[in-house]
Amino acid sequence: MVERKGLPKKENFSEWFHELINRTLIDQRYPLQGFIVYRPLGYQLFDNCLKILEDLLAETGHKKCYFPLLIPERLLSKEKDHIAGFHDSVFWVTHGGLKEMEEKAALRPTSETAMYTMLSLWIDSWRDLPVKIHQSCNVYRYETKHTRPLIRDREILWNEAHTSHATAEEAREQIKVGVKIYSELFRRLCIPVIFINVVEGVFAGAEAAIEPYTVFPDGRVLEMGSVNNLGQKFSKAFDIKFKTKDGGEDYVYQTCYGVSERLIAAITAVHGDDKGLILPPEVAPIQLVIVPIIYEEIEEKVMEECKKVKEELKKEFRIELDDRTEITPGVKFYDWEMKGVPIRIEVGEKEIDENGITIVRRDNGEREFVKRENVIERIRELLEEITENMRKRAEEYHAKKIKIARNMDEVKEAIENKLLAKVFWCGEIECASKMEKSMNAPFIGTEYEKGVEGDEKCTGCGKPAKFYGFIGKTY
Amino acid sequence: MVERKGLPKKENFSEWFHELINRTLIDQRYPLQGFIVYRPLGYQLFDNCLKILEDLLAETGHKKCYFPLLIPERLLSKEKDHIAGFHDSVFWVTHGGLKEMEEKAALRPTSETAMYTMLSLWIDSWRDLPVKIHQSCNVYRYETKHTRPLIRDREILWNEAHTSHATAEEAREQIKVGVKIYSELFRRLCIPVIFINVVEGVFAGAEAAIEPYTVFPDGRVLEMGSVNNLGQKFSKAFDIKFKTKDGGEDYVYQTCYGVSERLIAAITAVHGDDKGLILPPEVAPIQLVIVPIIYEEIEEKVMEECKKVKEELKKEFRIELDDRTEITPGVKFYDWEMKGVPIRIEVGEKEIDENGITIVRRDNGEREFVKRENVIERIRELLEEITENMRKRAEEYHAKKIKIARNMDEVKEAIENKLLAKVFWCGEIECASKMEKSMNAPFIGTEYEKGVEGDEKCTGCGKPAKFYGFIGKTY
Repeated sequence: MVERKGLPKKENFSEWFHELINRTLIDQRYPLQGFIVYRPLGYQLFDNCLKILEDLLAETGHKKCYFPLLIPERLLSKEKDHIAGFHDSVFWVTHGGLKEMEEKAALRPTSETAMYTMLSLWIDSWRDLPVKIHQSCNVYRYETKHTRPLIRDREILWNEAHTSHATAEEAREQIKVGVKIYSELFRRLCIPVIFINVVEGVFAGAEAAIEPYTVFPDGRVLEMGSVNNLGQKFSKAFDIKFKTKDGGEDYVYQTCYGVSERLIAAITAVHGDDKGLILPPEVAPIQLVIVPIIYEEIEEKVMEECKKVKEELKKEFRIELDDRTEITPGVKFYDWEMKGVPIRIEVGEKEIDENGITIVRRDNGEREFVKRENVIERIRELLEEITENMRKRAEEYHAKKIKIARNMDEVKEAIENKLLAKVFWCGEIECASKMEKSMNAPFIGTEYEKGVEGDEKCTGCGKPAKFYGFIGKTY
Repeated sequence: MVERKGLPKKENFSEWFHELINRTLIDQRYPLQGFIVYRPLGYQLFDNCLKILEDLLAETGHKKCYFPLLIPERLLSKEKDHIAGFHDSVFWVTHGGLKEMEEKAALRPTSETAMYTMLSLWIDSWRDLPVKIHQSCNVYRYETKHTRPLIRDREILWNEAHTSHATAEEAREQIKVGVKIYSELFRRLCIPVIFINVVEGVFAGAEAAIEPYTVFPDGRVLEMGSVNNLGQKFSKAFDIKFKTKDGGEDYVYQTCYGVSERLIAAITAVHGDDKGLILPPEVAPIQLVIVPIIYEEIEEKVMEECKKVKEELKKEFRIELDDRTEITPGVKFYDWEMKGVPIRIEVGEKEIDENGITIVRRDNGEREFVKRENVIERIRELLEEITENMRKRAEEYHAKKIKIARNMDEVKEAIENKLLAKVFWCGEIECASKMEKSMNAPFIGTEYEKGVEGDEKCTGCGKPAKFYGFIGKTY
């Protein structure tokens, strides 16, 4: 598709991205700004990502719950920083039927207020702790910035986890668990990320935030989620107290972390090529597609064989048979390539005669003939190989998109070349502010758990550097 | 729990139900009427029900999508009956941030309007048909009736499927598929239902509706969902046209069907007893719980053994080990019985000495000792047996709750005895109206696909009967 219209990914990334997602994952034509429709491929892709995440959360003791969409105004106002962060940017429900409601209610911009109202009822003593819960739901933000499908919508599909602990130390440890869960999620999606301790713009009400970022081909970085240490800010506001082991009383220490539909924006941007999407096999809604190679006289025989192959493979793989009769195999190839299906299976006269199938990989276009008796095993292997290849390729590309900059000229050059500048930083906020102002690009934060060793100098001011920092255009 | 407070299920069903769900599945204390919080057990139970349903929908060719929550007012107004059905009973979003929106938007009461707006863009020719999509989402209704948790909430968790076809015949066939999917779902949940062709009160905009009902212990029936034939009413309103095979043009024929959180209300009501929930093994969030039987001197040894048992079983079953130290085994038994866990495993000194475990069934309280080498196989069998027993017991009970009534005195007697009256009906609406007025209980509709054979007389008027009808109190 993109090819035909002369829109290679590299030349106009933004146009390529929008056209591709609209043809495959979503539909932007819903008549309300910032609200998009998820087509089957898009929703099932997101659902498969959620499945990985929810399993990781379950394995680490998080229980799945559901809390209401509507937040009465008085609840949203409890935590001051939080309300300051959200009051002007939420949707308000004011009427039920024809009647004005006694108190207006916000569509949740995030669920702290709903959840913490209940946690204050649920938590009584140290025996009830820790509490680890999560929910997959939608949140709503009245974005005044330019909306972008899958990147900045007003309806956001996401998963949010919330934990409460007896000590500050436990909450700090939980942050590491959150980062580990997301690292594993991104690894499975073959999306390279850097975790950044954000310096400013932390989540409203949070003490500290660590955010995974990935660099897009256009050099802009996408924040892919956040892991927040809330300390006791919310527990004090929502009165979440517990009896301590030694007979005292304290407020719980809390963390929260979330990721969103941006996962599938990143899958698109990181892996796609001029032909369309390339989906990681583990989350591809369709892992294999069979395209019958048909001439009129052998049509029935080939279709029979295709159905047999499908029956054999469907127990183990997500598979479709493209049995449309009115279009050519070539058009079908093009269609399934655009949709990113990891493996195409071709079955025609040759394959029947030689008792096998032809397999074509989406990631590198390689073809091979596989004997029928080896098909399941070979496809299993191939899906692994494709995953490994996608991961390696994405990591290599991502590494090239990050450029160490030792002085401001190098920072400027990096940004001009659509790269993310990795700088050395002294740790002074003022110095970071200066750097971002002079570059007209934000100083995002410092690399998570990686201090600078040796005697490097701050890229901004030349004083001894303590941290790695990042300067670049963001979404 | 219920036992202790002297609240057996039979004596005060309503109180029993509310207390039980609040202790286990939900929390009604969220400060907004009709909006409840789903505790982990409640949400995971619902999620497991959805999982069965979504698999059944996938197997029958329905693709999972997602359409926006907010419906601009002008879309909701397109289908007149539909809007008449919903305009006064939806929540309205009027403000984004501090600004009044140009056009107010409803929280979806159901997704026809959002989906069909897009289908008119997606469907072009007969080649695009049929389209079968579904989504699991929440819908919102500003109920003016008394709200009841899990039965009549203002925020409703549900799944809705929508299909579009080239002919009226195909749509009629699809209705049967819908009924079959739900039959299988209810079978798996061990919930007996009767499918009823509802005579009045069909879904706003539908031509015909078939609804599964189950009779609760208090004799009131609960509508558990609906399967609707929409004909061309919506496709004409939303201009969903397609080019026919022979070069003409027509509007698509549509169906829709949905089920909701009422699934878990029914699981509670149908299976629960004086001790609490009894959850069908296939959907129980926790299928097995291990309770260590500990005396001080052997604590460590028993806990070790319990962990080993858990490790062995967790690959195949959803299992928890209750390692709380501050409460007695007796209190734990009571707690897990209330939560409806199908099988309790006891491990103590005796079990270690004899190299086995003790198993206690929640459905009938039977205990047995199982040698360690047979544990997995025996538990697999037992979960099957429990399921079969629960299904049989529920069906027998349900059959007793339905009483054939040949005259109006018998109808009256049935209703007074908390039963659903099954009547013979001539087919005249006027006669049905008379019956319901005289009984002060609705004539719900006729039995799906079961006409009266032989020469029975109408319970209401004595004319020849054509249908089985149902009269009873509804939720």
